[in-house]
Amino acid sequence: MSAIKYPVIIVNFKIYIQSVGRKGLELAKIAEKVSKETGVCIGVAPQTPDIRLIAENTEIPVFAQHIDPLPPGRGTGAVLPEAVKEAGAIGTLINHSEKRLRLADIDECVKRAREVGLISLVCTNTPEVTYATAALGPDIIAYEPPELIGTGIPVSKAKPEAVTAALELVRKINPGLPVLCGAGITTGEDVKKALELGTRGVLLASGVVKAKDPYKVLLDMANSCL
Amino acid sequence: MSAIKYPVIIVNFKIYIQSVGRKGLELAKIAEKVSKETGVCIGVAPQTPDIRLIAENTEIPVFAQHIDPLPPGRGTGAVLPEAVKEAGAIGTLINHSEKRLRLADIDECVKRAREVGLISLVCTNTPEVTYATAALGPDIIAYEPPELIGTGIPVSKAKPEAVTAALELVRKINPGLPVLCGAGITTGEDVKKALELGTRGVLLASGVVKAKDPYKVLLDMANSCL
Amino acid sequence: MSAIKYPVIIVNFKIYIQSVGRKGLELAKIAEKVSKETGVCIGVAPQTPDIRLIAENTEIPVFAQHIDPLPPGRGTGAVLPEAVKEAGAIGTLINHSEKRLRLADIDECVKRAREVGLISLVCTNTPEVTYATAALGPDIIAYEPPELIGTGIPVSKAKPEAVTAALELVRKINPGLPVLCGAGITTGEDVKKALELGTRGVLLASGVVKAKDPYKVLLDMANSCL
Amino acid sequence: MSAIKYPVIIVNFKIYIQSVGRKGLELAKIAEKVSKETGVCIGVAPQTPDIRLIAENTEIPVFAQHIDPLPPGRGTGAVLPEAVKEAGAIGTLINHSEKRLRLADIDECVKRAREVGLISLVCTNTPEVTYATAALGPDIIAYEPPELIGTGIPVSKAKPEAVTAALELVRKINPGLPVLCGAGITTGEDVKKALELGTRGVLLASGVVKAKDPYKVLLDMANSCL
Repeated sequence: MSAIKYPVIIVNFKIYIQSVGRKGLELAKIAEKVSKETGVCIGVAPQTPDIRLIAENTEIPVFAQHIDPLPPGRGTGAVLPEAVKEAGAIGTLINHSEKRLRLADIDECVKRAREVGLISLVCTNTPEVTYATAALGPDIIAYEPPELIGTGIPVSKAKPEAVTAALELVRKINPGLPVLCGAGITTGEDVKKALELGTRGVLLASGVVKAKDPYKVLLDMANSCL
Repeated sequence: MSAIKYPVIIVNFKIYIQSVGRKGLELAKIAEKVSKETGVCIGVAPQTPDIRLIAENTEIPVFAQHIDPLPPGRGTGAVLPEAVKEAGAIGTLINHSEKRLRLADIDECVKRAREVGLISLVCTNTPEVTYATAALGPDIIAYEPPELIGTGIPVSKAKPEAVTAALELVRKINPGLPVLCGAGITTGEDVKKALELGTRGVLLASGVVKAKDPYKVLLDMANSCL
Repeated sequence: MSAIKYPVIIVNFKIYIQSVGRKGLELAKIAEKVSKETGVCIGVAPQTPDIRLIAENTEIPVFAQHIDPLPPGRGTGAVLPEAVKEAGAIGTLINHSEKRLRLADIDECVKRAREVGLISLVCTNTPEVTYATAALGPDIIAYEPPELIGTGIPVSKAKPEAVTAALELVRKINPGLPVLCGAGITTGEDVKKALELGTRGVLLASGVVKAKDPYKVLLDMANSCL
Repeated sequence: MSAIKYPVIIVNFKIYIQSVGRKGLELAKIAEKVSKETGVCIGVAPQTPDIRLIAENTEIPVFAQHIDPLPPGRGTGAVLPEAVKEAGAIGTLINHSEKRLRLADIDECVKRAREVGLISLVCTNTPEVTYATAALGPDIIAYEPPELIGTGIPVSKAKPEAVTAALELVRKINPGLPVLCGAGITTGEDVKKALELGTRGVLLASGVVKAKDPYKVLLDMANSCL
């Protein structure tokens, strides 16, 4: 377990077959290796059943992919913030485009994360939603236009003005709030461009998880952060 | 890991604070102890991040509390059947009253469970829904009137005619399909009554998880199965 | 308002721009005209705000597109069965592929529809789901493989064996329960084929609503029912 | 149809049996009468199937209780913004506590409302959510702590500091954005207190719809606005 250092690269494992269990651990080990070699902070968001496996066997920051806005008690099948914390996660994604939450629940998730000591990273889809999310006081925002997710068309190149607009709106609420961007990020150049726009890092998934050589891709990306 | 033997007692850990992580493992160890002492099959359904911890450190059947009806791929925050299987679960609850699913998704979850080799245990709330669920071909059904869940008023005593009605409807579809009941089960007597009605066991939660002495309660229940 | 007579053609207006308000009424008038000319029963399912407009100004059967499984009371934004009944609907679609419901809610919707005197027409997506739905005791089932909806590839020709399988499963529960089919139906020939398979009619949408000449298409379909 | 004038009283009909169809029209007529007698703007949010009935037969502002964030097309059972507009609504509630929406969908609903010319009134449940909602640029916000809805304990008296906090946060985004409050409002005094706190009116439901004498209650409330 370790804290976040910027710029940061966060790899979302989604529910790709390439990230299940032992394979997920291998991916996390690769991220750890690149992080140690370059000094760049690389976090991972494994599948929920794999959080403990990866947190116990690596030293990189582990995020849950989702928490539910519930207190302990009833809630069969829900992901309790306390449970991902005890399993070793230091933070959690909230409101990913594949797990959109109700506004009231994002508010509650951010509060629950704070309560149990998890870093809250809220995903957003438009500049306006990014602005609104900043008002909820999360620890990190990741702006990802959903139409680019998984396409290989990098948000940092395809929609630089939208990234800039989102950043400016966030600054009006809290100039110190770190904003990442994501969607279509597959190369070090995409990462570099994202940082040039003023983001503090990237959130990505298929670009690494489904890469032929995840080590090479991550190394390229990490080198672009230096 | 082991197969199911009837009568069976399945303990749903929900997201009770008493079942998080190490505490959940202790609960599972108690279930394992009672099972070994009495020879009665006792399964547990831990919180999703704890499936592997408990499956690797006990020899009792472990169920997921929920799976999502998705194939591997995109689906951040979802619970992939393959992932709970690899983490060591032998089955999964589906459609618990606290995680109700759409009919089309229950159908798909049952099929996905079969595909990856997980026992599907679908929860139902009325005799009609139990009848419908039988038609979907799951491995086990647990009938639980939601108004009694967590009350301590046992379904087997408060609604014996509803249990009987559900069993008769299931028999019209598949006489061999095991039906459990649940809701309000807190004593061995409740379990005994459930078996007398023709069920093959019980699904319960707070009666054990929140008990002062879970060992004592489970032992009483297991003895009622002999 | 009038009862259902088989074979029946039911036109779902969805939320097509071609079916909003006055345009929806025009479409319903066309359906009424064809129904009167041919004697074939044609029902319509207008947008929720248009139910009364169409029920008051035509004599064909009007269905709601959806009801919520709630009693009167709190439930802002929900569609109360009593309200669509008073607005003039004689029935309601339930669980359309674009408005999938939880199993427990379909059960409750069927019961609420019966309670207030609405015909319940439950949509299904697989033979297994059709079988399960029959167990819930609705008045009509419409089997529609979602992958064909809106494609113009008629279910009655592309998946005749699936339709037949669904019909056989329904018969095991209730031989008298009328089953329609839908998805990709755009011509009289598609309708004819559907009836030959043993269905009692069709549920369709774009084939009529988005047709250049809805009168001509509906007339062709109605003539195929004679 | 008419525009909004502040202070405003908006009566949400929910799905109370007292507001179905003709009864809903009677309620709206009472609101219209009080509005004409006092000159205070009173709007109503009828059940979806009753929007046209009430819009065509009264001259007060009519709001939909909900719209879906969809374009015209597929979406059976959804409420199309264009359809409620054509039925005569001048605005719509969005994200009521009984119909909570995902953040991304609230953003889209606000944009869709603007596109078709509907006033967007977004409901919120905490000061933080109110702040976030202001960032989305709706036309009106109604802050309603859900724990007080339907209790008769007025938000304006039970939580004045929360209302004040919400108002201050909204001012940081847009000082001109009208904020209403709601929950537990049943008397003219409750309304008066709400206005003293700086709100521009109230959103209420049971206090009027379930009142023995809605005319008397509304008149008392309207007089408190003078």
